[in-house]
Amino acid sequence: MHSTMPDTPLTIARILEYGSTVQGSSTVATWTGDGFDRRTYAEVGERAARLAHALRTSLGLSVGTRPEDRQGVVATFMWNNARHLELFLAVPAMGAVLHTLNVRMPVEQLAYTVRHAGDEVIVVDSGLLGEFAALLPRLPAAVRHIVVAGPGDRTPLSGFAGEVHDYEQLIAGMPSDYPWEEDLDERTAATMCYTSGTTGNPKGVVYSHRSIHLHCLQVAAPNRYDLTNRETVFPIAPMYHVNAWTVPHAAFATGADLLLADRHTGPGPLSRVIEAGRPTFASAVPTVWTMLSQEWDARPRDISSLRRGLVGGSACPPALMAAYRDRYSVELLHAWGMTETSSLATTALPPRGVDAERERAYRATQGQFPLSVRFRIVDEQGVVVPNDDVATGELQVRGPCVTAAYRGADGVPERPAEGFTPDGWLRTGDVGRVSPDGYLTLTDRAKDVIKSGGEFISGVALETALAEHPAVVEAAVVAVPDDRWGERPLAAVSLRAGSGVALADLRDFLSRHVASWMVPERWAVVASVPKTSVGKYDKRDIQDRYAQGRLDVVHLGRRPGDRAGDRAGLIGM
Amino acid sequence: MHSTMPDTPLTIARILEYGSTVQGSSTVATWTGDGFDRRTYAEVGERAARLAHALRTSLGLSVGTRPEDRQGVVATFMWNNARHLELFLAVPAMGAVLHTLNVRMPVEQLAYTVRHAGDEVIVVDSGLLGEFAALLPRLPAAVRHIVVAGPGDRTPLSGFAGEVHDYEQLIAGMPSDYPWEEDLDERTAATMCYTSGTTGNPKGVVYSHRSIHLHCLQVAAPNRYDLTNRETVFPIAPMYHVNAWTVPHAAFATGADLLLADRHTGPGPLSRVIEAGRPTFASAVPTVWTMLSQEWDARPRDISSLRRGLVGGSACPPALMAAYRDRYSVELLHAWGMTETSSLATTALPPRGVDAERERAYRATQGQFPLSVRFRIVDEQGVVVPNDDVATGELQVRGPCVTAAYRGADGVPERPAEGFTPDGWLRTGDVGRVSPDGYLTLTDRAKDVIKSGGEFISGVALETALAEHPAVVEAAVVAVPDDRWGERPLAAVSLRAGSGVALADLRDFLSRHVASWMVPERWAVVASVPKTSVGKYDKRDIQDRYAQGRLDVVHLGRRPGDRAGDRAGLIGM
Repeated sequence: MHSTMPDTPLTIARILEYGSTVQGSSTVATWTGDGFDRRTYAEVGERAARLAHALRTSLGLSVGTRPEDRQGVVATFMWNNARHLELFLAVPAMGAVLHTLNVRMPVEQLAYTVRHAGDEVIVVDSGLLGEFAALLPRLPAAVRHIVVAGPGDRTPLSGFAGEVHDYEQLIAGMPSDYPWEEDLDERTAATMCYTSGTTGNPKGVVYSHRSIHLHCLQVAAPNRYDLTNRETVFPIAPMYHVNAWTVPHAAFATGADLLLADRHTGPGPLSRVIEAGRPTFASAVPTVWTMLSQEWDARPRDISSLRRGLVGGSACPPALMAAYRDRYSVELLHAWGMTETSSLATTALPPRGVDAERERAYRATQGQFPLSVRFRIVDEQGVVVPNDDVATGELQVRGPCVTAAYRGADGVPERPAEGFTPDGWLRTGDVGRVSPDGYLTLTDRAKDVIKSGGEFISGVALETALAEHPAVVEAAVVAVPDDRWGERPLAAVSLRAGSGVALADLRDFLSRHVASWMVPERWAVVASVPKTSVGKYDKRDIQDRYAQGRLDVVHLGRRPGDRAGDRAGLIGM
Repeated sequence: MHSTMPDTPLTIARILEYGSTVQGSSTVATWTGDGFDRRTYAEVGERAARLAHALRTSLGLSVGTRPEDRQGVVATFMWNNARHLELFLAVPAMGAVLHTLNVRMPVEQLAYTVRHAGDEVIVVDSGLLGEFAALLPRLPAAVRHIVVAGPGDRTPLSGFAGEVHDYEQLIAGMPSDYPWEEDLDERTAATMCYTSGTTGNPKGVVYSHRSIHLHCLQVAAPNRYDLTNRETVFPIAPMYHVNAWTVPHAAFATGADLLLADRHTGPGPLSRVIEAGRPTFASAVPTVWTMLSQEWDARPRDISSLRRGLVGGSACPPALMAAYRDRYSVELLHAWGMTETSSLATTALPPRGVDAERERAYRATQGQFPLSVRFRIVDEQGVVVPNDDVATGELQVRGPCVTAAYRGADGVPERPAEGFTPDGWLRTGDVGRVSPDGYLTLTDRAKDVIKSGGEFISGVALETALAEHPAVVEAAVVAVPDDRWGERPLAAVSLRAGSGVALADLRDFLSRHVASWMVPERWAVVASVPKTSVGKYDKRDIQDRYAQGRLDVVHLGRRPGDRAGDRAGLIGM
């Protein structure tokens, strides 16, 4: 039966129009180092219109309104700032595609993604021209224009064969309204992000207008970012990765004010942004929350405006959540997601009416999936297991915000067999279980599980336990080859300055929390755990350093007094 | 460019699946008169599956997955209860269409809608068989099955030529899982509701899976129902009208517990439901909130669980909002919507940082539109006016949850010229203005404006002013013919028992709040203001009673001491 409801599409143009009119008096504030550069969403709307005119008429960018149309691709090599926000909105809203380049990705991978994505224009923050210069000789000829955002020396670009423009000059004098695509097919490409895997080439996820618009509705919900026009949001997570977890779009879609830190990504400057900008909500990886907490230990700040922080990207140690709750009255909300799930999927808001202990346990899970993500846990035999909080397997997901393919070499989506099941579910590579009331607990990455003597050891479980020790700042546990057991865990830890703790103390601490056969024999103290370009632990790097003998490893035997005959012994360890 | 995101549809089946699995331990509790009949969402899911099997195999209902497919229509004649919830979910999720019959609609109009909608099965609460009997002789032959929900005497149905079934017997023994339509086209019809206009035949709005799914995401937002699995929601607004404002779907989509009052719709029983069920949120028309407040004056209740109430359907007097805030610590959130906008559109959550007086002013507006509704204010010349909080005109809206047509006689959508602009905007018939920060203030229904001597008087403005008087329970102001001025306002008021106020006191009170030429000369005291079948003031009925001399009208002259030469005089009054 025909409904009487129309086919009005779910687009970025609608988000731009809504934010710049109904919420036009809300503001985006970019940190300059000693204050904010503030503009209203209405002004962002006008500048986005100017930008679209400039891209269309001055740079000749192609636009399309259907999945089969050719669309020009604009790449960005930028921090979190208001110009980046203008690009976030204008480029998809005009019918082109935005490709955010990860400024911390190795240059070979970056060059690969520029070529693979078909970038034609690259917008670069002037403060990043030095870093960008390394990419310059590897740019394909398809890149015809570089637009420099902000003042400064342009000489790093002198070798570029195409045209160089100044962002402000480019948009100056352009009309301040633009006929945004109203009747665009919502399945058309809007933005692109490449995964930052440590093996193989990066894989391109191409988000549609529909997927971003729906994700935007999802993340604004009360058990996620909880956004209205009464809030101020501070996306610390970078705009160059997975649409900054859709925070900029959600702010525009709700009228929440935005704070952006620009190039000031250290804990000191971030703290000043919080103190001066008074956000009610911020989003970051655990490492950043840890750094901020250390910063505030050293130099107390007024962070009283913060009500909730979203922790995604890696598992958040429960001790960190407890510290934020007890010391700063900030609710750190645990979350899980991937580039492939448009960022945020689950969040761990506990059900009501549970006691403090169960509340902590719920908060330590990855949390509940939203309506838009279907999931299942599949064991090694390919059987879907029940949600009984016991049966463990690979997490598989699907839904309107979950990618069903990667961008192929010719731009046509491809579905590699190792990434998807034959019936179209995304294989996340994460291993875990789900409780009867729908809370996900991830126990490991499939590839990070340590297979020791025929039994599995969860590196993540050891990391979580170690992070509870007051002297531990960061702890990464990786699998290393072992003659007797096949693999054994190695723990690389960074320690609080002046803590005076010995590795044997940590070994003993760990023995009280996990089965003794799981406790690593190999330990290394590191200044900080190496990270990938998006701030996750780079376990591959630790393994490589170990293999090449570039890690100072201390070998610790079993804790004195531990008896044989524990579980490991029973299964033949 | 092709995105890599899939076409996963937005369906009711997904809402049903999500609620009955991830949120399967949440509960729906139906009031029995002295307690709750409770079942989990997992049980609702199983019973919905049984119901779908029964409708398909026992009653031979057709299902479809594309707009062009034939789909069977199941009507309901029911209160708010768990069986109605099962029908809400199962019927669309299986690919059929649900048509909720308004149990308070006049029987001629009901018969019209049954025929027009193509109903084949009608499910009737056993307690409503008496009311339903009046409709029985007017049912078209297409209605082949009547399903009675609940125990009781079936003799009122003895004249029915088709088959009569018992709901529980029908679903007993059916399988408790069902292959819900996963790949249904989201634009396919899901539910139908007929408007309850006081003139002409009711008009049918046919909601799609997409429109309900999107509306569900919209209403759960923090500035609307604010729903998570920590809340308990009590939709007092009936399930037989506009999908109960999407509350049941939103509860399933978030895991909020549901309370349903069944046939117990009086203020006493509703208060008992609140006391026993401890909802955190409830939704109702202003009349119900007024009745509840009066009830609690007479008989104090523990309503401390209530945090927010949504007021929709008619304008909410600011005095009522203030009373709920001051006396019960309940935030009554003002809202506006129509059958045609899938119910809720705007809500009036004030921006932060405004003083108490401005906060009250913001709360008295109809509020801000959400991302999913585009709007414009159009003056009598057809020109779109600016959002300056001054320029007034007709409100026009469009969007994925706003109907673009009505169901035609042959089932094909029709777009009557009086209801829509040539470029496809819905003409709401409401008159108002929008502020620069996006807050809508409705001043009148276009058809309710009183045209007095060439000048317009807002009946709603007079009603709002009168409602501030402590002796006034309800006040309706309607246009009546006047020999000299064309039209003049007539005020029909119901008064608090024992208040001892005279109509002249009300006249004087009103004179202090509005221009004296606007003050009505004609006044009537009524036991209660007549209401339409959805609880709105039935102004047509008041006008008819006046025309037929069935209203005791008191004529009051101008307040003593008021001088001539006010605004009305200047324009020739």
